[in-house]
Formats: sequence, C-alpha cells, structure tokens
Amino acid sequence: MNDFKHLLEPRSIAVVGVSDEAGRPGSQAVRALISNGYKGQIYPVNPKYTEFDGLKCYGAVSDIDAQIDLVVIGVPAKGVIPVLKACAEKSVPYVVVLSGGFRESGPEGVEREREMLAIARAAGIRIIGPNCLGFANIHSQVFAAFGSITREPKLKKGGVSLVTQSGGFGYSLALACADADIGFRHVIATGNETDVDTVQLIEALLGDNETEIILAYIEGTKDGRALLDVGKRALAVGKPILLWKGGVTEEGARAAASHTASMTGSYDFYRALFKQTGIVEIREIHETVDFLKAFAAKKYPANGAMAVMGVSGGSAIVFADAGEPEGLHLANLAEQTERLLTEVVPNIGAVHNPIDLTAGYFSASNRDKLRTAIEVTLADPGVDALCLNLATTGSAGSTAAAEVIANVAKDSAKPVCVFSSAPRDQIADASRLLAAAAVPLFPSPSRAAKALAVLTRYGAARREAKRSEYGESSAAPSSKDDLRGWAGKLSEAQSKDILSRAGIPVTRDVLLSDADDSLPEKLSWPVVVKIVSPDIAHKTEIGGVKVGVRDPKELESAIAEVRANAQFHAPEAQIEGVMVSQMVKDGFELIAGVVNDEVFGPVVVVGAGGIYAELMRDSSCRLAPFDENVGRQMLDELRCRPILDGARGKPALDVDAASKALAALSRFAWEHRDAVSEIDINPLFVLPQGVLAADALIVPMPFPGH
Amino acid sequence: MNDFKHLLEPRSIAVVGVSDEAGRPGSQAVRALISNGYKGQIYPVNPKYTEFDGLKCYGAVSDIDAQIDLVVIGVPAKGVIPVLKACAEKSVPYVVVLSGGFRESGPEGVEREREMLAIARAAGIRIIGPNCLGFANIHSQVFAAFGSITREPKLKKGGVSLVTQSGGFGYSLALACADADIGFRHVIATGNETDVDTVQLIEALLGDNETEIILAYIEGTKDGRALLDVGKRALAVGKPILLWKGGVTEEGARAAASHTASMTGSYDFYRALFKQTGIVEIREIHETVDFLKAFAAKKYPANGAMAVMGVSGGSAIVFADAGEPEGLHLANLAEQTERLLTEVVPNIGAVHNPIDLTAGYFSASNRDKLRTAIEVTLADPGVDALCLNLATTGSAGSTAAAEVIANVAKDSAKPVCVFSSAPRDQIADASRLLAAAAVPLFPSPSRAAKALAVLTRYGAARREAKRSEYGESSAAPSSKDDLRGWAGKLSEAQSKDILSRAGIPVTRDVLLSDADDSLPEKLSWPVVVKIVSPDIAHKTEIGGVKVGVRDPKELESAIAEVRANAQFHAPEAQIEGVMVSQMVKDGFELIAGVVNDEVFGPVVVVGAGGIYAELMRDSSCRLAPFDENVGRQMLDELRCRPILDGARGKPALDVDAASKALAALSRFAWEHRDAVSEIDINPLFVLPQGVLAADALIVPMPFPGH
Repeated sequence: MNDFKHLLEPRSIAVVGVSDEAGRPGSQAVRALISNGYKGQIYPVNPKYTEFDGLKCYGAVSDIDAQIDLVVIGVPAKGVIPVLKACAEKSVPYVVVLSGGFRESGPEGVEREREMLAIARAAGIRIIGPNCLGFANIHSQVFAAFGSITREPKLKKGGVSLVTQSGGFGYSLALACADADIGFRHVIATGNETDVDTVQLIEALLGDNETEIILAYIEGTKDGRALLDVGKRALAVGKPILLWKGGVTEEGARAAASHTASMTGSYDFYRALFKQTGIVEIREIHETVDFLKAFAAKKYPANGAMAVMGVSGGSAIVFADAGEPEGLHLANLAEQTERLLTEVVPNIGAVHNPIDLTAGYFSASNRDKLRTAIEVTLADPGVDALCLNLATTGSAGSTAAAEVIANVAKDSAKPVCVFSSAPRDQIADASRLLAAAAVPLFPSPSRAAKALAVLTRYGAARREAKRSEYGESSAAPSSKDDLRGWAGKLSEAQSKDILSRAGIPVTRDVLLSDADDSLPEKLSWPVVVKIVSPDIAHKTEIGGVKVGVRDPKELESAIAEVRANAQFHAPEAQIEGVMVSQMVKDGFELIAGVVNDEVFGPVVVVGAGGIYAELMRDSSCRLAPFDENVGRQMLDELRCRPILDGARGKPALDVDAASKALAALSRFAWEHRDAVSEIDINPLFVLPQGVLAADALIVPMPFPGH
Repeated sequence: MNDFKHLLEPRSIAVVGVSDEAGRPGSQAVRALISNGYKGQIYPVNPKYTEFDGLKCYGAVSDIDAQIDLVVIGVPAKGVIPVLKACAEKSVPYVVVLSGGFRESGPEGVEREREMLAIARAAGIRIIGPNCLGFANIHSQVFAAFGSITREPKLKKGGVSLVTQSGGFGYSLALACADADIGFRHVIATGNETDVDTVQLIEALLGDNETEIILAYIEGTKDGRALLDVGKRALAVGKPILLWKGGVTEEGARAAASHTASMTGSYDFYRALFKQTGIVEIREIHETVDFLKAFAAKKYPANGAMAVMGVSGGSAIVFADAGEPEGLHLANLAEQTERLLTEVVPNIGAVHNPIDLTAGYFSASNRDKLRTAIEVTLADPGVDALCLNLATTGSAGSTAAAEVIANVAKDSAKPVCVFSSAPRDQIADASRLLAAAAVPLFPSPSRAAKALAVLTRYGAARREAKRSEYGESSAAPSSKDDLRGWAGKLSEAQSKDILSRAGIPVTRDVLLSDADDSLPEKLSWPVVVKIVSPDIAHKTEIGGVKVGVRDPKELESAIAEVRANAQFHAPEAQIEGVMVSQMVKDGFELIAGVVNDEVFGPVVVVGAGGIYAELMRDSSCRLAPFDENVGRQMLDELRCRPILDGARGKPALDVDAASKALAALSRFAWEHRDAVSEIDINPLFVLPQGVLAADALIVPMPFPGH
C-alpha cells in the first residue's frame, strides 16, 4: 500500500509547460498555486522564459537545483516522454500528466502511453493521468490541475475527498456539493489511470486523517477484488464511500468505450460488491449532496423505525411513501411516549406517529415544549431516528425551532434530520444552526426518507461486517482436492463428487460402467437415468436423461435408450457410463453457480430454476467467499423467495441448508479460484429437509494452475 | 361540467371572520387581497368592527347590499353553519371554508360537515374545503386563502395551475417551482373536498385559457372514472397533467387515514389510469420542476433516439445510463450528418453520438460552427431530440452558446434541452436566454434524460389517444346476454358460455348431467374431467378435477371419482353434472380477470399463470374498456412476456389472440359493469394459434342491476 503522502501533500512542485498563451494547463496550475497561497516551492518550467508570473522559470526539470516531490506535465503529448525521462533522472517520485493524446486518441497514443508507463515503472515514478484534470488538496492549497478545478467557485475546506475518472462530470459533483456548503479535502481526477487508479487512491485516503468520507465516480476498474478489499477496509474504519458507477447500461458502456477506454465490468457484480462492503451507490447529483449531509453526523439508525414530526400530514405521507420501498417504516410509539407528548402537543395535533405539532407551533415561546417533544420521541426505544418537518413558518419560527433541534440532536445517539421546502432565505439562519450541529437539512420529505434509508443500510452493513469475518463461517470445510491435474473437462459424476466433498449435498448416484450394467443398490424407486460423458454438457437436449424410471424393467430399457441416443447424437463422445440417481420430489428447483470473472474473481450466482430463471432474470449474486448469512441474503433477494416458505399449503423448505450450500460453494470457488472457471449446479433442489444438487458441472480453467 | 368561473375569477369577495388578532385566516385573506391589488369588491365581515384595514366592515353577509360571487369563511368550525345559511339566503354561488374542525376531527365534525353539505346542496352553493388553505388566482390577484399561500415569496404569473388536497405539502411544490422561476395561474388547496374535488377543478382548468399545464397532488379520489375521463380530455386538448399520488404504500395509506380521511384506492389502478391517459406521475419535488420546464416548449420527441452534444464524456455516459431504463437510447447519426459535423467539430473531438465538441468550444468566435453543429444534428431523421451539455466554461462562453441554442431551438420542431452543472451565477445570463426560448435547463445529465423520457412517453400517449378511440376497437362484439336475472352464482359452464359469446375462446366442453353419463363426442383424447357446481369455486382443492384422462375406461372411473370427492368434501353442494373438456397442451398459462372496483369500476388484470403468478406478482392491469393495442401493452409489461415469443426452441405463441381476448374481456366487463363483480379466467392458455380459456368464473354483483 502506498499512502501517496508526497503526491497529495507535496513540499515542492515543478510545472512543465507554462506559457503566456491563454488557457495552457501548466499556466493554470501555477496561477492557481500562487493565487491560493500554496506554501511549498513552485518551479515553472519553459526554456523560453526566465520568469513566469514573478517566479523564476527553469529551462528543464534537470535545471532545478532541489528535490522535487511532484512534477505536473502540461506539454503536448509528443513532449511528455522526454520530460518523464528527465523526471526519472532526477528521481522525482510523483508525476501528474494533464496532457491528452494517449490511449483515448488511437493506436499511436496507446503506444505512447505504454512507453510512458514503462519509463515510470523502471524509475519508480507513480503517475496520475494522463488525459486528466489533475488534483487539488484543498487544505494545503495544492493545485496540480487545470480547468474547472482551478476556477471559481473555490471549494471550502472540509472532510470530503473526491476521486473521479471523469474530470468534467466528476467535478460537477464537487460543484453541487459546494453549492450546498459542503467542504473538501482532496479532489482528484484520474483520467486514463495508466498507473495510479481510483482504488489505490481510495485506499490511501483511508489513511488520511483529514478525509472523513470518500466520494468517487468510476467507469470501470480492472481489479474488482482490490475494490472489494478497500470497500471492506473503509467499512471497518468507518469512512463511508459514496460511489457513482458510470456506464451501467448498454448505452452507457458504449459511450464509455469511446471515452476513457476503461474496461467496464458487469454492473451486477458491482452491485453485489456494493452490498458486501456498504459502499453507497449514487445515481443522481442531488443524492450525492443529500447523502454527504446525512453521513456528516456519523450516526446510523439501528433499524428502519422512523418517527416523523411536523405540521403537514401530506409531507408525512410523502415521507412514508418514499421510505417504505427502501425498508423504512413509521415507528409505533410507546404508550408512555404518547402520554408525554400529550403534555406538549396541542389538542388539535396528533401524538401518534406521524406527530402533528399543528401550524404555528414553531416559535420562540414553544421552545421548551418542542425540546420535550423531541426528547421523549428520541427516548422511545421503538424509534430509530427522528425526522422533523420545518414547515414554512417564516424566519423567526424556523430559527427558534432549529436552535432547539440542534441542541437536542447533539446529545442524541440517534440520527435527527430535518426537511423543509421553505424558501432558502427564510431558513438561512436555521440552516446554519443545523449544519453546525451536523443535522442534515433536506429539501423534501422524500429525499429525507431516502437519505435515512441509506444511513440505515450503512449501519446494518457496519454491524454485519463486525459479525461476519471470513474464517468464522459456519459453512462446511471445503474440499482438499488437488485440482491441478484436471484435464480441462469434468463429467457430472466427477463434478458432483468434488462438490460433495466441498460440503454441497448431492443426489445419491450410482455410476454404472460398461462392465457392470446391473441394478443399483441403496436407491429407491423412482430413479433418473443419465448418460455420463465429459464431452456432453447438455444431456437433456440429446435424449441423454430419462426421469421417473419406476422398476428394474424400465431401468434396463432407459439405460439402453440413453446410450443409444448418445451414440446417435454424439458418436465421438467418450462415454464413462450411465448414472442412476435418486429422483427428487417435493423440492423447489434453484440454479446455483459460479462465474470466475476476469475483474471480480469468483462470483456465486443463485436463481430460480426452470424456464423462469432464464426468462425472468430472477437471480442474485455475491463475490466469493462469504458465509451463510450472505447466502441467506442472496435467497432473500429472489422474487421466488416466498415459495421457499411453503406455497399453497406445501411445507416450508430448508432455507438454512440452501444458505449453507451457497456459502460452501463460495468457499470452494474462492479456494480453487486459480483452477475453476465456471460451476453450474442445475438444479439445486431445496427440500423440506436439506438441499440436493441433482446435476452439476465444473468447468476448469483452460490452463490450470496458471 | 362546471367552469367555476366566478369562483376562480370572482368580481366580489366577502370574508367572514376578520379580526385584529394576529394570524386569523380571514384577516390574512383580506390583507393579501389588498396588498396584491385585487380589483374587485372586498367585504370584510365581523359584527365587532365597522372598519377593517381601511375597508368598511359588515356585521353579517346579509348586511352586504350587493351581489357576492364568493364568500370566504374563516370563523371557528361551530360558526360556519350560520354563515353558510346566510350565504344561502343571499344566493351566494361559491364559498371557501378555510376553517378546520370537520370530518378530520372526529364524529362531531363528520356530522357538521354533513349538515354543511346538505345546506349547500339545497341552496346550490358550491364549496371549496373545509379544512383547507384556500386558493389564489395569481393572474387576477384573488386570494381566498391564508397561510403560506398569502405569504412571501409571491408567485409570478405563468401557465401552471396547481390543485392539491394537502395544502402544506402541495404548496411546497409551488415554492420549489417559484425558486426555478416558474409562473402560476391558479393555486388551489382543496382540503376535505366535501363538495368540489380535485378532479372537478382539473376539468374546469382544461377550459381555462390561461392554464397551460396542470399540477396536482391527491391522496385519493372517490371517482376513478371521472379522473380517467378528465385525463383523457386533457390529453386530447394537449394540457399535460403532472400528478403526485400520496399514500401509495401501506405506510402512506395509514398516514392518509389520519390526515384528510380520504378514500385511498389501489395504487396499481392509479398507475394503470396514468398510462391510459398520459398523466405524468411525479414522485419528487425536483422532478416537478424538471418536468414543468420540459413541457414548456410543447414539443415531444417522436421516439427515444437522443443526440447528446457537449464536452464531457462522463456526462454523456450518465445521460445514457439514466435514459436507457426509461426507454431512451443514443441515436445513430447518419453518415451525412457525421460528415457535416466534421467541418465544424475540432479533430480531437467526436462526430459520432455523443458528439464531443471539445473543451473551450463554447465561445463567441465559435457561434456559427455551433449553430451548424446543432442544425445538422437536428436535421438528421434518426434524431428525435437533442441534449446539450453547457459545461463549466465561464459566463461569456455559456452566454454565447445559449444565444445560439435558443435561436436554433425556436425554429426546431424537435425538442432541444440543455444540462449544466455550472454554478448558478456563472450561467445566469444563459439561463435567462434559454428560459425565454422555452429551452429547459437541467442541473444534471440524468435529470435531463428523465425529463426527455417523460416528454417521449407523453408524445406517444398523444399519438395513441388519437389512434385508439373506444368504438373503433377490433375486439369482438360483446355478449348481448341479459344478465339481470343472475342468481348471484354462476358455474364454470355458465361462465364459459357467457365469455364465449363475448368473444373469448373457451375449451370445448361437454356437460354430462346425471341422466346421461355417456362418452363425449367431438372431443379427442386426452381429456380433463371436472365437477360442475355453483357451490364449489375451488374444484382442484377437493379433488374435483382429473387431468390426462386417456380412454373411455379412465373416463368412467374419473367421473366416478370427482363425483365421490365432491360428495365427500361438499355434501351440501348442488351438483349440476360433470364437465369433460379437451386437454390443452403446448400453451402458456396466463391468468386473466376483472375486478369491478368501487372507485375505478371494472379493471382488467392479466398475469403469468401457475404458482409464479401469485408469488412473483407478475401482473398488469388497465381500466376497461380498451382495444387490443392496450391488451398488447399489458402483455408487454409482464416479466414472463419473452416466453410468449417462443422460449427454448418452442414455437411463438399467439400474442395477437391474447391481446384481442383481453380487449373482449374489457368490453364485456364494461358493458356489464352493473352486473359483474369479478371475473377469473384461470388458466387462459395462449397457444401457437389462438387462446383458450380452460376454466372461468363470473361472480355477479350481490344485487344485480342495482
């Protein structure tokens, strides 16, 4: 891990490519450093000048007679390599390449970027960019940047650090936050990410004491596992990550390809990763602002029971409408709470939730009553958070109310938030009071509900992370098979044998080889008969499966039939024999499997079986490995989930066993990630007692043990 | 229909309940009328005063020696009835009751509200309220209101009329619009809606020349059919309705019950109605602002092909991400278009969509180039709308660009919109230029995409409305059955017989009565055997159905078995006989049905059959009657829809026939809406050719012909 200390906090900066021509990136950087009062050394570089904006200007990096922490390169693409070589000679540790004309511009640029990276690697230089807006350290007035980052409005200091692949769109997030008076620590636009990438920077920011929350925009990552790890560490240290994933649709991916040429992974895998790490996905600019405000207090609801207090019934309805699909509900207040509220809420109001204080309640004279109302509500053990509607009561009333709210909120372990649709100027004073107390103020009840839902989920992810560390899993121990010898193809029998040892129950099968086609022992009628061949992946399609075989006579003819069909449809296939399996009834069919993704590594997928699985896309996934609690969450996300509880009078099915099987599968896939390319268990029957894999296929890596 | 002319545009207003006490609603109304310069007569009423704020004050309504168009009542609840009686004597046509203390306050209030309505009905008085904020006519400075409606900020004149059941939350919509410089015509808060309701007011606004677009917040309506009709008329006259439905979740509904005690219908039915009328559902305050801006130009994309032009690849990705789930896609530009763009777009930019003009392009010197770029893009027949990103290029550049955009947009039949995340003050001039040309300016690419998607869907609804008028339906003519004689229970045989005559194909059945239990003719094996009794609704559960009956011998025993089972499980049931039906294979099972809802009338529902239907809630509904195009839309909304196109090598199924069957069912349900309470067709098989209802049940109204 690199903390990038002298990258983000450089003691000296050389800027190559300053010029009197308007708009040159290097000039913008130098001017921003000067005007913002950067305290370190600034070395402008341009052989044509001896002075630039009052600073001594150098002919080349090599002319600078001092240690340089950071070189900012803003010359045209063709000139970048020579400058980088000079940096290498001078042992410069960090370089920001603002210039475009690399990978994004065609074959010549691809070659140039490759050469640049090779030089940097050889010299131990770490590069931000190329083709980027650069970065700024708002606390230390470092501006290794150009364009919007160096222009008005100036960001104020704060605890948010932004890392973005897209400078243009990413910085618009910062501007929206600035408009809402949110302050920043670092703002970093990474462009092509030829060397330093978003994930590495987030990792470094976890170690930065001034960074309290991380905001990121990414179009893709080449290493999903690194993102998973950094996400888990962020959760552990309590620094929330708010992440916008660009390029999530076909259209988006297409536009991504023409933009920074990033590798875009599957959105489903990203979303699984977000769930496993508590990363908060953002999809709108105003959400970014709302969620940053919400996280400022670092208080998370223990559950989804919300109390709403205000003067508009309509607003409470809108709050409830927006919260319910996000997992929130209106808390049931205790009798004691309602009794205490009765003493401070007017008769024409309501002391049940939503609590109606009645119009005009917010006033200086009602301060004590309001304080009591808030305190008794927060004290109710059935209330996880409180949301107040600061209605349009004019400036004096809202200020008086905000004073009380801010005071009570400070001492409360439960989150308190406010929404108000009053005009900005009417609640300017109230806004300031609330912001100072880290009480978020939202512009609508629905946005308040969504922000509280995000806090609730984040709190749950924190608790879950503390509980479930890999290693404490209750999943069965995985197989000790040495899989290096795999030939590249595994039959159903081999696959089930391996999975069985990995802790996944499989149907009782008897493999009949050519030599002894006799009746199976230990199986009860009816049975299923299947051809066994590593060369036949889809047995059903070629007539290689017979179900419902009821007696020895039917068995004999079934065996003959599947053999004949295999011979007819796949004459070249190597036939290992015929498998006779116990026939499963009274279960529900799931499909479970593993995709060993290039970016995300092994991912476990589960879905409803049969025709609906494919067509209705009822599936859920998580990155392996995980424990049975995560397995249960996956099942809970399926639309077919209610069926497992026993539909139409049928018995409830064994969700525990299914959860454990998924965890076992995830552990197996993780431990054999170098050897396993894909796994399909289809179907995985969930029974009233236990689960059974009735068919399975493990596809090894093309080059095992690579 | 009532145009409420002298309600919303009164020539004289009496206000009962003025007082020097601070905050009295009547006083607020009079002062708002005076300070805003209302041109008509104002008559304050309070026996304690002879003058109020410089106006002559009257002792009672009866003391006013002139015709009064509108009386505003702001006295406490107990005093309302006497005032209303005085209004009746004076033949006052309209009254606004601001006072609370009616239905929402308990049994006494319910009785008071009933008495008030009776007096009004008898006297022909129309009432707004009670328990409401009242209304304002912003064009004529009418303020029959109190509270936030009469306070700062003053709304500016414009073409938006707001009708809201919730004064508090509803007016927050107006405030958000005011902040975005959107102007208003009428703002009406209806409260308890004891007489005049939201739907009637929307209907009146359709006839108001100054109202161009209608914004509404409702928690419930007692007459879904009236809303359907007014929605269809609004679509026909081209006045968009933006509607926020509060109380859509269980939680929301619960809060609703304690608020205005409105009757809340099913949200699914509302959403079906919105689709059938082009009503735009809003669920966020900022959406309200975005969509109002978007509708201002009255131009709708012909389809979902969007061109995006700007300088940030990231923003284009975000636009595409947000648009795709809403039905938008990035247009493929014609070769000709790209060639023409090459002449005006810098080499390092992109002439394919999204079009990258490159940073710094927006400047006074590039005016002509920008104009050409926009014009050739809009001229491309494959482009339905254009969205420009006004990046953060400073004030001069954005103003120059806005001038060009505004000019070209005026002459374009296709919608042009702009998004920008630049700080407000940097684009203040650009904003004004764009607003003057009705070019909407959105704060993010995703919000631009969502607004364009709404315009696209509204345009499609307009075209659909012109095409499909009820009466031109291709659905089969409905049954002429006289259903008045129904006894309250219908057997499967009777139900299928009736539906068959209504144009819905049913399985070939033979009903065997006690007398002649002989083999059926005209049926091919296998067959299904079912008990027939109006007293047994769920035949399968009692063993009253045998499927796959293969020969005469099996038939004989099947008949005996279902009779025995019926006798055992339902000894009291009247048995009409046994039905032998053709067994359907190779089809997909749907469930189709009708719910005759108290609020919405007959609604047709269709869903996937079998266990998945119930558990996965895969269904779609529309208000009857409708034609087969709407039937097809319903099927298209089902998650199981791909199965109908032929899954896993199976033949495609007859979607046309299924659509026609739904249309026929809808027509039948509509024509017999006074007699039919419920219809279930389960299953409705969709076959490669045609559809077949294999079982059906019609539940008549408890009191037929009521």
